[in-house]
Amino acid sequence: MFFYQNAGRKWDERVSPLTTYFCAGAVGAWRVDRIEAVRGPGLPAAERIDIIDGAEAVARKDARWVLCGVRSHLRYTTAEENVALSRLQPELGRQAASKAALIPIRKNGAWWALAQDERRAIFEENSHHIRIGLDYLPAVARRLYHCRDLGEGFDFLTWFEYAPEHAPAFDRLVNALRVTPEWSFVDREIDLRLTRLAG
Amino acid sequence: MFFYQNAGRKWDERVSPLTTYFCAGAVGAWRVDRIEAVRGPGLPAAERIDIIDGAEAVARKDARWVLCGVRSHLRYTTAEENVALSRLQPELGRQAASKAALIPIRKNGAWWALAQDERRAIFEENSHHIRIGLDYLPAVARRLYHCRDLGEGFDFLTWFEYAPEHAPAFDRLVNALRVTPEWSFVDREIDLRLTRLAG
Repeated sequence: MFFYQNAGRKWDERVSPLTTYFCAGAVGAWRVDRIEAVRGPGLPAAERIDIIDGAEAVARKDARWVLCGVRSHLRYTTAEENVALSRLQPELGRQAASKAALIPIRKNGAWWALAQDERRAIFEENSHHIRIGLDYLPAVARRLYHCRDLGEGFDFLTWFEYAPEHAPAFDRLVNALRVTPEWSFVDREIDLRLTRLAG
Repeated sequence: MFFYQNAGRKWDERVSPLTTYFCAGAVGAWRVDRIEAVRGPGLPAAERIDIIDGAEAVARKDARWVLCGVRSHLRYTTAEENVALSRLQPELGRQAASKAALIPIRKNGAWWALAQDERRAIFEENSHHIRIGLDYLPAVARRLYHCRDLGEGFDFLTWFEYAPEHAPAFDRLVNALRVTPEWSFVDREIDLRLTRLAG
């Protein structure tokens, strides 16, 4: 038996979504400072997070728990919004950005039953998700990983990097999003804060 | 080590995307009448397709090849379009609908690099994907499976069921879609036609 999992990659050069693993355990470049269950069940304590991605990535066999997601295409962002975001948003991995947040999020069945225009209206026209985020650029670098289609217990893994002096601003960003109409559909959310280890 | 794969399903009742496996081999309810590579590489010949889905589904170990996808939320359809579709579209499994088509499709990197509003405009305002499909309801029952985020060699698996007398209409539907602007982004497409076996 063979799956067509990799067959598509062999015959041409299309970049497929990359899988990223967040592996909790004793090793990894990021130290876990705290894990807070914002809504729904939390995650077991862990000392560090090892982030593994790339075309050949596999999860650590010795991990205590693993979250995985894929970098995928834009789901709500318009071309105009994407220009504004691209102009301001920094890359991950900046030297000064030694603080990070990993926030896995799950939305309820009512959200996923909505049509595309209804979800978009809640996301931006009513909740200003992109507009709020723009206020915190370029201080906060971010990346969104999708995992709903993977059958994970979450729909998204959101990752943010910022310098220690921007930690209060990052908290304001998170708090601003959590009071939006969009967030009334969030039924599980966990907030992990991390510090990059030297070396 | 544990993945959070099923953890989300334990603590509440949200319906997660169901994985469906199309297993090619010697067994299954659908006989393969032909496999045509429309664009890009085809698939190896097979006698039958066994469709396996449900919360506990696993692919057949004796399958020659397997395609898998998930039933997911609406990606372009508006609430208004969804009402029109829901009013007309039949369920799968109708007794008279003994013919089926399984059409795996992949779009190129240029498609996936577009913003949401750009893809939507090509999909409907320029290509009339939904409007064309409506003309063939209720003769053709359909279901869309997503697999891009799964790392498959395809982005979608499209499944259609119709009575033998509607086979010419189904061909007109497929041909109408293949000449749209949207289809210029399709870089791999395979057209499998099947007949449901009695019993």
